[in-house]
Amino acid sequence: MQHHDAILIIASSETDSNLYYSAGFLAPDPFIFLQMGSEKILLMSDLELDRAKSQAKVDTVFALSDFEKRLKKEHREPTWVNILDLILKEKKVKWLLVPSNFPICYADGLRGRGYLIEFKGEPFFEERAVKTPDEIAHIRVVQRATEEAAEMAITAVRESEIRDGMLYRNGTALTSEDLKQIINVRLMEEGCVAQHTIVASGDQGCDPHNEGSGPIAAHTSIIMDIFPRSSHTLYFADMTRTVVKGRAPDPLKRIYDTVLQAQEAAFGMIRDGVDGQKIHEQVVSVFERSGFETGTVHGRMQGYFHGTGHGLGLDIHEYPRIGRSSSVLKTDHVVTVEPGLYYPGVGAVRIEDLVQVTDTGYVNLTSAPKILEV
Amino acid sequence: MQHHDAILIIASSETDSNLYYSAGFLAPDPFIFLQMGSEKILLMSDLELDRAKSQAKVDTVFALSDFEKRLKKEHREPTWVNILDLILKEKKVKWLLVPSNFPICYADGLRGRGYLIEFKGEPFFEERAVKTPDEIAHIRVVQRATEEAAEMAITAVRESEIRDGMLYRNGTALTSEDLKQIINVRLMEEGCVAQHTIVASGDQGCDPHNEGSGPIAAHTSIIMDIFPRSSHTLYFADMTRTVVKGRAPDPLKRIYDTVLQAQEAAFGMIRDGVDGQKIHEQVVSVFERSGFETGTVHGRMQGYFHGTGHGLGLDIHEYPRIGRSSSVLKTDHVVTVEPGLYYPGVGAVRIEDLVQVTDTGYVNLTSAPKILEV
Repeated sequence: MQHHDAILIIASSETDSNLYYSAGFLAPDPFIFLQMGSEKILLMSDLELDRAKSQAKVDTVFALSDFEKRLKKEHREPTWVNILDLILKEKKVKWLLVPSNFPICYADGLRGRGYLIEFKGEPFFEERAVKTPDEIAHIRVVQRATEEAAEMAITAVRESEIRDGMLYRNGTALTSEDLKQIINVRLMEEGCVAQHTIVASGDQGCDPHNEGSGPIAAHTSIIMDIFPRSSHTLYFADMTRTVVKGRAPDPLKRIYDTVLQAQEAAFGMIRDGVDGQKIHEQVVSVFERSGFETGTVHGRMQGYFHGTGHGLGLDIHEYPRIGRSSSVLKTDHVVTVEPGLYYPGVGAVRIEDLVQVTDTGYVNLTSAPKILEV
Repeated sequence: MQHHDAILIIASSETDSNLYYSAGFLAPDPFIFLQMGSEKILLMSDLELDRAKSQAKVDTVFALSDFEKRLKKEHREPTWVNILDLILKEKKVKWLLVPSNFPICYADGLRGRGYLIEFKGEPFFEERAVKTPDEIAHIRVVQRATEEAAEMAITAVRESEIRDGMLYRNGTALTSEDLKQIINVRLMEEGCVAQHTIVASGDQGCDPHNEGSGPIAAHTSIIMDIFPRSSHTLYFADMTRTVVKGRAPDPLKRIYDTVLQAQEAAFGMIRDGVDGQKIHEQVVSVFERSGFETGTVHGRMQGYFHGTGHGLGLDIHEYPRIGRSSSVLKTDHVVTVEPGLYYPGVGAVRIEDLVQVTDTGYVNLTSAPKILEV
């Protein structure tokens, strides 16, 4: 850690989880967080002032308007840089540490007034990656809701009929949109907000972030990737299951079994102190040894071309990563393990569980079954 | 506009609407957007490559991995700054314009390699504030869904019984949580994601961003502020209604009537070319002339201490503003008009409509009735 005098964050805590984590206060518009040693200060608009005073986990909440009044003599329209300059001078702060996404406008403004500003990448707060028992409990609640929602969608697939190779439910074609609605409405009933839920069948699933649309065919894979956020605790969960209505062709079955085998290989390596990069390399190696190649065919990526997992908490994607770069797992990190294989014309499979890293291995926070044909 | 050679944005388009607006592509993780004249380029991870090629509204989509391979000789782990340096040299770009929230880490990296970087505040793309007929249509769809959801919640209030001064529905106490669930689930059924919906009754409503919780009392105000986003088009809507179950006390009625009068005064001024600051001052003046004072009483803000309105589109709060700073309205801006008065122990009222600015006035995009007692 650098020898800075203070930490400074300026952001909206609805979109910046470092700020929400450190200030314990949720607001849609940007506000100012300043930490000197263990002393935490917020600077808020009048609109958020009283709510911040009662909810934020900080020592002092100041009104921006009070500083604006003090600065009116010198500046016709005092800016946040003027206000910060006043406070930082009073606090004798010259050297600031900021997150790597700190806005250039404030950085330039403060540097222009002589402040030294250094940035730090993720994890900005190392302790944010290590989940407390309360945080694990929050994640488990969202994970349970996710599994219930997935089960409802899989039941809809299971109970559908096959006509001319397509799925029908209550007499009409079953679509990706129908299944996403079942999932998202069920999650909202549980107080969880699901956005960008993926229900992608056939070749749509070969683009791992294609959300999927239109009628669903039998005998081909349906990837369901669900990652809602609790409205109450703001923690995420994340799970993917791949199913087929009818009979999975043999090449698709082989893909499915190999992805499962790769996931098991990853599970076998997870424990405190292991580098995520090594786990990812192991997954890649399982695929290569099984003859599943990765590369561009007819101008389109196929094989395995995403990371094996990512940390999860107040952000859906956060430190650490299980991927191509080095990132060491520690006890009580919560990470996804989500290998996949994607071959247009043959099939797409992704299987994703959420696990808690322990001293000797992991606890799987996911209990949903893995069944290909439903 | 500065004489820059290119526009550069590095962000996640799920949280950065300037990027989504200019690239026409939605992705959860950060990517690179570069525009030279009318030529638009994206730099994407392998994971998003094919989806970006088929969906993004740009001229060229490059794979970051191709540049990483080219740079492997010079750098063991090439960074995005290394990659940008390579491309910008090839394109003979030296001078970059970025948004004011551009991350310090890339700004410092590029400046360290000799690039000139200037930032521009909102509106970064002036044309984003001026809505096209398609954008207005998207906003109208979300606004209709918002009004339906509000009507369902207001019906639940209307049909509740009063027992010992509290509201009951189907034999149990009616809570803020119940009403938010009715609203949010209904909106999700319509493909709209509502987060941070406010249903705040009594003194809770005196904090304008308090989301509200617990049982609801009769004869006091219930503020419902609903601002969902369409999952399909990504446009927002925004509406607030204030209702009372039972009889509103006279002081609360006077507050309600004065807020309505202030909203009408604001409507009367809205047209192309008018400064939002003047409209806000007019609202403040209506309140002051009616004897409603603003200030801190017993350490708590009361009266009118938020802006009168804000632009809305791909962001819930965007340029222009109707508030304390100068911000000129133009034809086809879409803005909220949402005066409110907040007096702990007496009552809280906010009434919010969404309007489209025209050459000669405005079109109100809101058709929900304004009825205090239900």
